[in-house]
Amino acid sequence: MTDRHEVTAFDWVPPFAAGLVRDLRVRWALEEAGLPYEARLLSARSERPAAYFREQPFGQVPAYRDGEVAMFESGAIVLHIAERSEALMPRNPQGRARTTSWVFAALNSVEPLVSELGAVDIFHQGEEWARLRRPGLVAELGQRLDRVADWIGESDYLEDRFTAGDLMMTTVLRNLRDTDLVSERPVLAAYQARCEARPAFGRALAGQMGDFRKTEASAAH
Amino acid sequence: MTDRHEVTAFDWVPPFAAGLVRDLRVRWALEEAGLPYEARLLSARSERPAAYFREQPFGQVPAYRDGEVAMFESGAIVLHIAERSEALMPRNPQGRARTTSWVFAALNSVEPLVSELGAVDIFHQGEEWARLRRPGLVAELGQRLDRVADWIGESDYLEDRFTAGDLMMTTVLRNLRDTDLVSERPVLAAYQARCEARPAFGRALAGQMGDFRKTEASAAH
Repeated sequence: MTDRHEVTAFDWVPPFAAGLVRDLRVRWALEEAGLPYEARLLSARSERPAAYFREQPFGQVPAYRDGEVAMFESGAIVLHIAERSEALMPRNPQGRARTTSWVFAALNSVEPLVSELGAVDIFHQGEEWARLRRPGLVAELGQRLDRVADWIGESDYLEDRFTAGDLMMTTVLRNLRDTDLVSERPVLAAYQARCEARPAFGRALAGQMGDFRKTEASAAH
Repeated sequence: MTDRHEVTAFDWVPPFAAGLVRDLRVRWALEEAGLPYEARLLSARSERPAAYFREQPFGQVPAYRDGEVAMFESGAIVLHIAERSEALMPRNPQGRARTTSWVFAALNSVEPLVSELGAVDIFHQGEEWARLRRPGLVAELGQRLDRVADWIGESDYLEDRFTAGDLMMTTVLRNLRDTDLVSERPVLAAYQARCEARPAFGRALAGQMGDFRKTEASAAH
């Protein structure tokens, strides 16, 4: 792995998405690992260049490359970085297995329902199906969140130390910021706050927001 | 890693889910890797034992253990097995990165919309919101599938050889068997058939279905 780590990000997003775009996960992992990186910004207001679909088959962010690999999917990129930094994943097989389990749990057992709620509350707000769907969806997601809170209990993290699994779970919970689903579960709210208090998270968030502000500043001229 | 590999599975599921339960992914990976395994069957018709939530925080299948690790989430387990078998993942960093990218793409960029369609067509069939939601959801999922088909193009696999990424994408596409979404995309239909033609897939599917049949046979007595 050379010194160069590049992640793609948007140059601007609407306010509802600011601080939530998935390159945040990669920025955070790189900050935890102490690896400097460059954000390659894509225009959010024009169509994705055709060539970008060879880097990211769905045209989304983030895509990533370093001296060794070119890859996509925030979960995969974070695991790739975690393999290179004990700050994100223990070196022993069981620690690796648990970290990997929680990265997938965040993305495949929790996030799909969170995203569906985003569709209901944001992208399809005001549509009849969204109004009818919401109560059942909130109940289902709430049960899933209860299982995460039960698991954490009185622990600080999902396992016995902070790992890439906590990083990923935190970024999933952040998507619920306009709902009561986390705040009404004190274990989860405290857990999220604990993870977000990490200096590396602060730097990653400042990086994403700073790139948006640069665009706004240049658009104002 | 000792010789013993154990995966949890259900002893029975309704017909709409038979051949689709997620332990299939782990069985398939173990079959590709040539690792013998035991399925530990959970009763599908009674409540999950409280102790099981310490193995699988959401009470779902599969959970997995071998001589080295105890873990959960089908994606994490398949990657764990893939790290131990070149049949599932190349040994070089770029091959590993691409395999991991596609495992996550299947589970985080394709499966969430597939699962949402499952909610519409199966779990909430006949409900007004499901009827209203379906056309938009099918269009959105169709676009996502188009991107996968565009990527595959004239290739046999997602990358230059079969990997755990293909294993995972195939199991996601299988969930669309009662829709036209795969069959109306010949590239995807041929891709899915190509992956399902692998002897290891056949053995894995026979394993899952055989465990269901054992339960049905014993219930008949």
